[in-house]
Amino acid sequence: MKIDVLFSPVQSDELYFTGKTTVVIDVLRASSTIITALMNGAKEIIPVGTVEFAVKISGGIFGGQTLLGGERNTIKIEGFALGNSPSEYTKDIVSGKSIVFYSTNGSRAIVKAKYSANLFICSFNNLKAMADHLKKLNEDIVILCSGNNSFLSLEDSVCAGMLVNEINTEDKAIVLTDSSKAAITLFNSFSKNILKLLSETDHGQLLITNGFESDLKTCAELDSTEVIPYYSGNAIKVLK
Amino acid sequence: MKIDVLFSPVQSDELYFTGKTTVVIDVLRASSTIITALMNGAKEIIPVGTVEFAVKISGGIFGGQTLLGGERNTIKIEGFALGNSPSEYTKDIVSGKSIVFYSTNGSRAIVKAKYSANLFICSFNNLKAMADHLKKLNEDIVILCSGNNSFLSLEDSVCAGMLVNEINTEDKAIVLTDSSKAAITLFNSFSKNILKLLSETDHGQLLITNGFESDLKTCAELDSTEVIPYYSGNAIKVLK
Repeated sequence: MKIDVLFSPVQSDELYFTGKTTVVIDVLRASSTIITALMNGAKEIIPVGTVEFAVKISGGIFGGQTLLGGERNTIKIEGFALGNSPSEYTKDIVSGKSIVFYSTNGSRAIVKAKYSANLFICSFNNLKAMADHLKKLNEDIVILCSGNNSFLSLEDSVCAGMLVNEINTEDKAIVLTDSSKAAITLFNSFSKNILKLLSETDHGQLLITNGFESDLKTCAELDSTEVIPYYSGNAIKVLK
Repeated sequence: MKIDVLFSPVQSDELYFTGKTTVVIDVLRASSTIITALMNGAKEIIPVGTVEFAVKISGGIFGGQTLLGGERNTIKIEGFALGNSPSEYTKDIVSGKSIVFYSTNGSRAIVKAKYSANLFICSFNNLKAMADHLKKLNEDIVILCSGNNSFLSLEDSVCAGMLVNEINTEDKAIVLTDSSKAAITLFNSFSKNILKLLSETDHGQLLITNGFESDLKTCAELDSTEVIPYYSGNAIKVLK
């Protein structure tokens, strides 16, 4: 079993993921928001690569059960019902709904990895459940950090390292690459206080500046759910 | 003064570097080889982005004083005089010569960063000299790791972290990004024994398999020279 980590989607093209088992991480905030939406009863999340495509496919084909959600550069997109704060995705609002979702880094990373044989979404919120499932699955894994506009995101990298560390137990013969070794090292150095980490990273700082500080607390909650989002047929649903 | 680190050239396009002060690192082996060639009296190194371009521009325009050097996937290119082992670039062979140089990761990273206002080449061999010069220069810095075919290379990342750490002294007010914080963390974890590090990384392992183990020792030598390669007018020369 081999685990590799990509620190940004620009490190690979779409076909790289063909047939692979891929885990997309976007701690701040797409992964955490998708997990929250599914926890709160959303039927499915449909990730898209452009805002234009989000608008195009939401035009009535889901019979009024569709919501548009997401952000561009942290801010809710004009005309969208929801932004990218987990706190907006409450039971009242999302239960039973299909949510077409765009975000600057996260949704685009998911779309890029769409040819994966298995495609999961992970954040600190479902870390242990995700690790347990991957251990059972016993396939080679690519962890795809959504990053920050092609740059490394420390919160995604630390989360990736925590996932590698959780899987890399004595009963598994794990082959680590330079990248997965680097991720474990970052996890060991930065994971003692996840909320503090999130408040000090480049993207965390931007979110605080733009008024989203309260989101950091939700995104920092470790193992708050066992929901595993699974992408299949262009939509993300809860893995059964 | 801000220091950023790119772990792979794919994280940016060519124009990103316009006007910037950039340091390219390719520990195994392009940086170390270029430094060795200049130490041993080469007139200049002309880095190129393709093998075809190397062959094209070496056709006589330098009046017989040109050598072709470099590798593709670690192996010397057919028809080239030199590969990418520092040990090949001896005084006897390179003194006074222009060397047209291609390598899988390093020369392409240098060419990508060609619009930089200042463009330097660094490895463990000239780490302290490079840091001292950058401290004097006092400009924002982008450290560009050549990486390993779009993936993170642990040896380049650790070298980048050592450079950041060496510059980040008390008398400098350095702004660190997620990436430069990550690089410092990797430096702290992996730099105790550089030769051991090089022998365990993905690319180090490949070099050992392909018979280049002796190169690792040269590439692991810390501060063996004060030569700083500087790119200007399409050629790399010793910074005076």
